[in-house]
Amino acid sequence: MIQRKRVFEILERGMPGDTASIVVDYGIILVIVLNIGAVIISSFNDLPDLLKQGLTIFEYISIAIFTLEYGIRVWTAPYKYPGLRFPYLRYITSFMAVIDLCAILPFYLPFVVGVDLRILRILRLFRLLRILKLNRYNNAVELIAQVFKGEKEKILTTVFITGLMLLLASSVMYYIENTAQPDKFPNIIATLWWAVATLTTVGYGDVYPITHIGKVLSGVIALLGIGLVALPAGIISSGFIKAISREEQALQEGVPQEPPGTKRICPHCGKEIE
Amino acid sequence: MIQRKRVFEILERGMPGDTASIVVDYGIILVIVLNIGAVIISSFNDLPDLLKQGLTIFEYISIAIFTLEYGIRVWTAPYKYPGLRFPYLRYITSFMAVIDLCAILPFYLPFVVGVDLRILRILRLFRLLRILKLNRYNNAVELIAQVFKGEKEKILTTVFITGLMLLLASSVMYYIENTAQPDKFPNIIATLWWAVATLTTVGYGDVYPITHIGKVLSGVIALLGIGLVALPAGIISSGFIKAISREEQALQEGVPQEPPGTKRICPHCGKEIE
Amino acid sequence: MIQRKRVFEILERGMPGDTASIVVDYGIILVIVLNIGAVIISSFNDLPDLLKQGLTIFEYISIAIFTLEYGIRVWTAPYKYPGLRFPYLRYITSFMAVIDLCAILPFYLPFVVGVDLRILRILRLFRLLRILKLNRYNNAVELIAQVFKGEKEKILTTVFITGLMLLLASSVMYYIENTAQPDKFPNIIATLWWAVATLTTVGYGDVYPITHIGKVLSGVIALLGIGLVALPAGIISSGFIKAISREEQALQEGVPQEPPGTKRICPHCGKEIE
Amino acid sequence: MIQRKRVFEILERGMPGDTASIVVDYGIILVIVLNIGAVIISSFNDLPDLLKQGLTIFEYISIAIFTLEYGIRVWTAPYKYPGLRFPYLRYITSFMAVIDLCAILPFYLPFVVGVDLRILRILRLFRLLRILKLNRYNNAVELIAQVFKGEKEKILTTVFITGLMLLLASSVMYYIENTAQPDKFPNIIATLWWAVATLTTVGYGDVYPITHIGKVLSGVIALLGIGLVALPAGIISSGFIKAISREEQALQEGVPQEPPGTKRICPHCGKEIE
Repeated sequence: MIQRKRVFEILERGMPGDTASIVVDYGIILVIVLNIGAVIISSFNDLPDLLKQGLTIFEYISIAIFTLEYGIRVWTAPYKYPGLRFPYLRYITSFMAVIDLCAILPFYLPFVVGVDLRILRILRLFRLLRILKLNRYNNAVELIAQVFKGEKEKILTTVFITGLMLLLASSVMYYIENTAQPDKFPNIIATLWWAVATLTTVGYGDVYPITHIGKVLSGVIALLGIGLVALPAGIISSGFIKAISREEQALQEGVPQEPPGTKRICPHCGKEIE
Repeated sequence: MIQRKRVFEILERGMPGDTASIVVDYGIILVIVLNIGAVIISSFNDLPDLLKQGLTIFEYISIAIFTLEYGIRVWTAPYKYPGLRFPYLRYITSFMAVIDLCAILPFYLPFVVGVDLRILRILRLFRLLRILKLNRYNNAVELIAQVFKGEKEKILTTVFITGLMLLLASSVMYYIENTAQPDKFPNIIATLWWAVATLTTVGYGDVYPITHIGKVLSGVIALLGIGLVALPAGIISSGFIKAISREEQALQEGVPQEPPGTKRICPHCGKEIE
Repeated sequence: MIQRKRVFEILERGMPGDTASIVVDYGIILVIVLNIGAVIISSFNDLPDLLKQGLTIFEYISIAIFTLEYGIRVWTAPYKYPGLRFPYLRYITSFMAVIDLCAILPFYLPFVVGVDLRILRILRLFRLLRILKLNRYNNAVELIAQVFKGEKEKILTTVFITGLMLLLASSVMYYIENTAQPDKFPNIIATLWWAVATLTTVGYGDVYPITHIGKVLSGVIALLGIGLVALPAGIISSGFIKAISREEQALQEGVPQEPPGTKRICPHCGKEIE
Repeated sequence: MIQRKRVFEILERGMPGDTASIVVDYGIILVIVLNIGAVIISSFNDLPDLLKQGLTIFEYISIAIFTLEYGIRVWTAPYKYPGLRFPYLRYITSFMAVIDLCAILPFYLPFVVGVDLRILRILRLFRLLRILKLNRYNNAVELIAQVFKGEKEKILTTVFITGLMLLLASSVMYYIENTAQPDKFPNIIATLWWAVATLTTVGYGDVYPITHIGKVLSGVIALLGIGLVALPAGIISSGFIKAISREEQALQEGVPQEPPGTKRICPHCGKEIE
């Protein structure tokens, strides 16, 4: 059973000095990055046949590696969640495991018809998120993640208010512009396209009001868009400042500060405690 | 009279454990959300007749519910504003009650001609704002509202400065571009459309200067637009930080902190004390 | 001499309770606002003759009022700058006095040829800035002005870095795109129009690169534009927070806080000391 | 050897009172600014022959001055990095020296074929960055540079997350829009152009999705773009506030504060210690 523990250690984030583990870490990242390259290259037209074949072979190899990795991660789940009653289930239902499964499953389902396999292949790109787990800029990633987590309620409220604003603006704009431009503002859902482009100040220029009152509303929404940028900026600013002052207080009191990456896990359900 | 008090309690925000109240709360929200769905669906063309009839029936039912709710709220006003001399008047003139009335009144005024009833129906969407009153993300909503209230003067000043900037930019731009593009910059009011699109950095691309000096002015306004985003971001940031430091001070002094949602109401006029 | 002092008091910002002064304050603001209305209305085409005549008469009256006001302000300058050796010169060279003069001078210079009088008339709009001097939102205006003054160096540095970025981006883009689109990128100065539209993320859509390398540069500039918004937002945020913490410290130390509007004036030159 | 030291002092940033040094400083800046003017002017078409000749002569003179300056800087390197074993090598490999070399080298390489000399000439513009080294707004430049340095990890993480977002959005968008608009979304790399324009909210309007699901994705990316502005704004805000609180603490403790421009240099390698 010692062997399984060692395999787990190698696959997990490498401890400093554990060469095997670090090699495996970077090896998997390399395969993921190469996969991204392959997805990008195969999006080009008129590729030479040799390259097409190479990409296909590379895809077989990648799938083999990813499948093996997934299998080993399931196998070593008891070491990832020690003391849990259902460690395998816990792992399989975790966010990263679902993404990993999505990346390999489509390959084994050739009888899935009507679904575009290429879109499913893009899911493999999401594996790129794992790079964030590497040690290099780890503290910064953790800090940013903590700030977003700490301000979650305020951010969700901002998202909710934004959604409300978009819906109200689209409904009113639809009644204003529908008669003048029935092809550009055919219904409230289609008008959302204008609302998003205006509120976020993207302004592609494909849809804009031409009536006087429509322009007034559009101007108001664009100005509100400024407030919409200011609100999350303020929320995140205060989040970072909170994090800093917490750090400083801990330093002053001489309390050994908990490293930012430490997570408390409930011993009963294995879920993270916030 | 105990009955009226109970009805009031049920209609108001549910206390934890008061099942009837919570059911009514969410029931009304459900009707509002369904109404939004109905408004959106009826904006589509070529709906089948059956669906049209269903939407009409649903509208009758909604209006009945909203009317009933409005009546009950008026009836229970004395419990909402205890000790006030004119609780009914106080309720009827409150912001939410006016919105509620606007949502049902158009239905009862079929003899209003010349006014587009459909626009009035959109007012019903504003009822959606009530969701913000529900308990889920309540603290965050209250905090954001508090920050905006606390920084009200600065925000209004920002709005005023923005308005001034738009007016000045439009006036100058009108004299610059009017000769070159008389159809796009016909007068100062119409030029405001360009000013808003530029200052908010939306830039639809339907109106932009073509003269050299006009482009210089446009560039300056666009660059000022960056300051315009920075100003409210700074104001709101400092607002949130003020709120946090107030909280922390209260914690340090051991004073039992007042929950953020608590509002003090003047016993004489029933208005909220800031 | 008491009379002149009283006239000065009336023309200056009204003390609470000084009815005459407050009436004059708002009266002048009213004339300015009406002037703005007149400028806006006269920008429309095809006005009826009667309205045109009315606007002309109104212009005569406004000029008379503004001239009178300017004269009185010069006359009462010794009370505005007590103890100064050259109070008249000091007033005439002040920023607001120059603007005031610009607003009335064009009217008295009918022999100025080649200069578009209409543009000079717009200068009158800048008088609108005086509204900021009124008491309503005065504290907020002073605070914002203080923050901008306190962060002046950082803001100027930001402006300078922005200018540098625009110049470098335009120079490089000119060499990249000139061959492909000689009409849109004819020289480096004209390319600045693209640079501003991209860095400020306005993106009208009239000028954009079509070569591959041009698109890469454009993307980089657009991404740098995000940093450009973030920098002043951060500067202004920290400015507001500094102002708050200064206030709080003053409160804790029980030191009678200097009102934010107080300005120290050098007794020798009469200039404001920062 | 005293002479060489004096030459070094003159070329370096002028001490207050050292007239010769200050004259040389501003003289070089003047030559750089004139060079920028020359680059801009020569980008115009149809210049008169006399002007073209003047620009060519001016280029010869500039190159002579820049070459002389570069030579002297190399010669005086031992005074810039005292105690270092290889001061010449240290200087030649420094960032500013590389830029300086790039500005003069192309002129001496007329046998370099296939490379557009004009692009190399633009490198001379980067010398403009030296203005930042002058004393005027020096403290602000140092403070901003310090804040960016202090938040380097967070900023790099933001850049990395942005890159990831762009890549994922482009990949998904390519599969969505490729069939509908094969000319605008031909492959994943080309789709990055859309992704950048949307995430930064530039929105030129040359490329935008036309399918329903493409519009949904575009809207989501535009909304995420708001968060992308908010994140660096928050990071930089907190950076400035950290800098302020550090300053204040130093003031309270009575410790003589180190001027912001002071850099500690390792006596062994001559590199700056952060």
